[in-house]
Amino acid sequence: MKMAHLVTHCSFSASPAVKTFSRSPGYCCNVSQLQNSKSSNLSLKSSLKRQKKSYVTCASAAVQGQTQTPLTGSQEASGHSSSKPKKVMVIGGDGYCGWATALHLSNKGYEVAIVDNLVRRLFDHQLGLESLTPITSIQNRVRRWKSLTGKTIQLFIGDICDFDFLSEAFKSFEPDVAVHFGEQRSAPYSMIDRSRAVYTQHNNVIGTLNVLFAIKEYSEECHLVKLGTMGEYGTPNIDIEEGFITITHNGRTDTLPYPKQASSFYHLSKVHDSHNIAFTCRAWGIRATDLNQGVVYGVRTDETALHEELSNRFDYDGVFGTALNRFCVQAAVGHPLTVYGKGGQTRGYLDIRDTVQCVELAIANPAKPGEFRVFNQFTEQFSVNDLAKLVTAAGAKLGLDVQSKSVPNPRVEAEEHYYNAKHTKLIELGLVPHLLSDSLLDSLLNFAVQYKDRVDTAQIMPSVSWKKMGAKPRTVSV
Amino acid sequence: MKMAHLVTHCSFSASPAVKTFSRSPGYCCNVSQLQNSKSSNLSLKSSLKRQKKSYVTCASAAVQGQTQTPLTGSQEASGHSSSKPKKVMVIGGDGYCGWATALHLSNKGYEVAIVDNLVRRLFDHQLGLESLTPITSIQNRVRRWKSLTGKTIQLFIGDICDFDFLSEAFKSFEPDVAVHFGEQRSAPYSMIDRSRAVYTQHNNVIGTLNVLFAIKEYSEECHLVKLGTMGEYGTPNIDIEEGFITITHNGRTDTLPYPKQASSFYHLSKVHDSHNIAFTCRAWGIRATDLNQGVVYGVRTDETALHEELSNRFDYDGVFGTALNRFCVQAAVGHPLTVYGKGGQTRGYLDIRDTVQCVELAIANPAKPGEFRVFNQFTEQFSVNDLAKLVTAAGAKLGLDVQSKSVPNPRVEAEEHYYNAKHTKLIELGLVPHLLSDSLLDSLLNFAVQYKDRVDTAQIMPSVSWKKMGAKPRTVSV
Repeated sequence: MKMAHLVTHCSFSASPAVKTFSRSPGYCCNVSQLQNSKSSNLSLKSSLKRQKKSYVTCASAAVQGQTQTPLTGSQEASGHSSSKPKKVMVIGGDGYCGWATALHLSNKGYEVAIVDNLVRRLFDHQLGLESLTPITSIQNRVRRWKSLTGKTIQLFIGDICDFDFLSEAFKSFEPDVAVHFGEQRSAPYSMIDRSRAVYTQHNNVIGTLNVLFAIKEYSEECHLVKLGTMGEYGTPNIDIEEGFITITHNGRTDTLPYPKQASSFYHLSKVHDSHNIAFTCRAWGIRATDLNQGVVYGVRTDETALHEELSNRFDYDGVFGTALNRFCVQAAVGHPLTVYGKGGQTRGYLDIRDTVQCVELAIANPAKPGEFRVFNQFTEQFSVNDLAKLVTAAGAKLGLDVQSKSVPNPRVEAEEHYYNAKHTKLIELGLVPHLLSDSLLDSLLNFAVQYKDRVDTAQIMPSVSWKKMGAKPRTVSV
Repeated sequence: MKMAHLVTHCSFSASPAVKTFSRSPGYCCNVSQLQNSKSSNLSLKSSLKRQKKSYVTCASAAVQGQTQTPLTGSQEASGHSSSKPKKVMVIGGDGYCGWATALHLSNKGYEVAIVDNLVRRLFDHQLGLESLTPITSIQNRVRRWKSLTGKTIQLFIGDICDFDFLSEAFKSFEPDVAVHFGEQRSAPYSMIDRSRAVYTQHNNVIGTLNVLFAIKEYSEECHLVKLGTMGEYGTPNIDIEEGFITITHNGRTDTLPYPKQASSFYHLSKVHDSHNIAFTCRAWGIRATDLNQGVVYGVRTDETALHEELSNRFDYDGVFGTALNRFCVQAAVGHPLTVYGKGGQTRGYLDIRDTVQCVELAIANPAKPGEFRVFNQFTEQFSVNDLAKLVTAAGAKLGLDVQSKSVPNPRVEAEEHYYNAKHTKLIELGLVPHLLSDSLLDSLLNFAVQYKDRVDTAQIMPSVSWKKMGAKPRTVSV
């Protein structure tokens, strides 16, 4: 909660043509240190003199005048017939999924703005973590994108928990779609100590409430595409449906929200979001798609692979790293794969190239006003042991002797359980999955091997225990 | 959220023998203005000189030495065999249900401490509302209780969202049970504007998280008795079970949390609490009872009826007033009963004397470590039209010509629906309900008539609309 306030509101644009205002000099982070462009510096300085209570006013000439040259494929902003591209606000667009999605949508002809407070970068500093791939500043990222493709991505740097900031971003950009990745997204992070648990729930729940109020107030037709998680459902002993289940009970029948059994303060925050969003769809007519995403693996998309300054982050540590990515790094450096407990924990997984594809499909086929729609966003189910076997086999082909070892499970979760989750709705909309065939895993493992000199082995082991979590502030040594 | 910070941390005790410390003079509200006792003033002044970082240190001699003289009935702290009474922390003990419960438990021989930031009194000031019954300060209340019964109720005045304050209260009092009423409890309040919606969810969710962390850190065996609401379930087209439902789906069966469909940011906050609490029971072994309470009516309990300074509050306004209490006041002053829409909205109801009885039953029969138990806490179901008919009939007996009128429903809710909610678990524990027989309703209506000169008719109409709710701060004229 307090951490969010460490990040000050700040506006920035990669385009020299864009006017940038900030409420007061004290609120603006030192953009000039991050920028190379003299004209942008000048723009910032002149804006400080004006000290309007407007965070950002963006001239859109550069965007309107740009040529649409999709990098991949030929369809533009599918499902949108107007010549003016749909405006998509990507909240959390500096993160792992958000950055890849922002580039993908920009490439597909959507007009994209990124809203982010960059607090994820602060967490890396505070916890001593670093992405396997070097990542440059968000300002450099969007400048590089512009230089390579001619496409502008607007930046609104600030905290969505600050409604004044969010309002200004909405009024300025006028989004047709808000894709909301802007949450603290690590289960272990939320289980470090009380202050991180409270931060996670406050940041995620209040941030999402603010987005809902901004839509109601400024952009009633705006389609909210919200990233949820498959972890909202837990591991029930019956099939998991997509958001709703039809129940016959004592001779009567109703279709109700699927029961939720989340297993970390992070996963719970997404459960809370889902309930809040569903209510606003009923009460206010908000249109929303809740994407209950599985565990994402991979790092490269067509767009991020274009240039090293467009690289996506690749977390392999015990706090932000996800299962398969972590295993690939462990295999690359000769560390035994760290299987938590019995390894029977089964979840849905997807390639990050399918994340960006799914979000685009949700945007191109929007929910109706008042509709709360839930898609389970993953392509295949694996247990942790399944993943270990696949990585071991892929390693052997590269001459790596990959071992596994069971480590005490830091989480409280079933280690052997039934798991069968439906995931047909996005397929019906046209998703063509990148399945974890041998060749895909080979290339991911190869990628990790390429970067193995950058691996800090101290980050590999899990360091956050659900049961040992305490009320007092905790230093995490990773 | 910000409102909570308007209330400063403050410690106070009704007993001159109790030492009261505050972290710093700046943190302590002006207790001396509220107190009549010279010795308490002296105690406060001397404490300020010490400026320890301890909020409250209470000598328990007065409590340990007291004679147990239950006011009603003869059983003491039922289910508790030790001679030392169980220590019950009543969070939100200055409110409508909390005050009645605190007195009832004190009367039954439990050692009671009230934790409250008194923010409910601030809401009255801010919204221009006033209880039908005059209520005196919490300090006068506990002093009067002490003078009449010899029983001490400790006071911890502060905000449970401030974990330092809550920690000191837990370390000082060492509760065996935490009864948690300490939430913003009005659906209309949460629907006034964005800031009240955010305040409600922040205050309720983070406050409850803090209570869970305090239990884990300082009082692992402490039984959490948490006030939820029947409104968590919404109005499904199937029977409502008590917290969990067994579902057979595609040939497999599991018992899962009952699906939640809350219809205000307040009701949603309780849904979030329930999910958070259930998780901590699984992950940490917390023992918890979630009391999904229906709409409470009535005002007098055996204890609050003892003296006018022990009076409970009686809200009849459109923000905090509950259905039946409001109808009685409307009938008393000759105002038509305000039926929202079609009036077919059916809910569970209970007498406030059953609230205090249910909480005691939950305490006396605690959940097991790791158990998350849900009781539906109400005694009868009524539609709004049912209530209007009952009040009309009771009014006729008093010579009142009671009319009803349908007003546009300010809420978004089904006005005609199936409703059948189970409520057997508390009965099985021994609840003997006070049902809304003619004589009970007669006495409630009589009570309202007694106080009719204090009614402010401007407060009677609903003033908060779900659909018109906005992002911008709103002044509510009631």
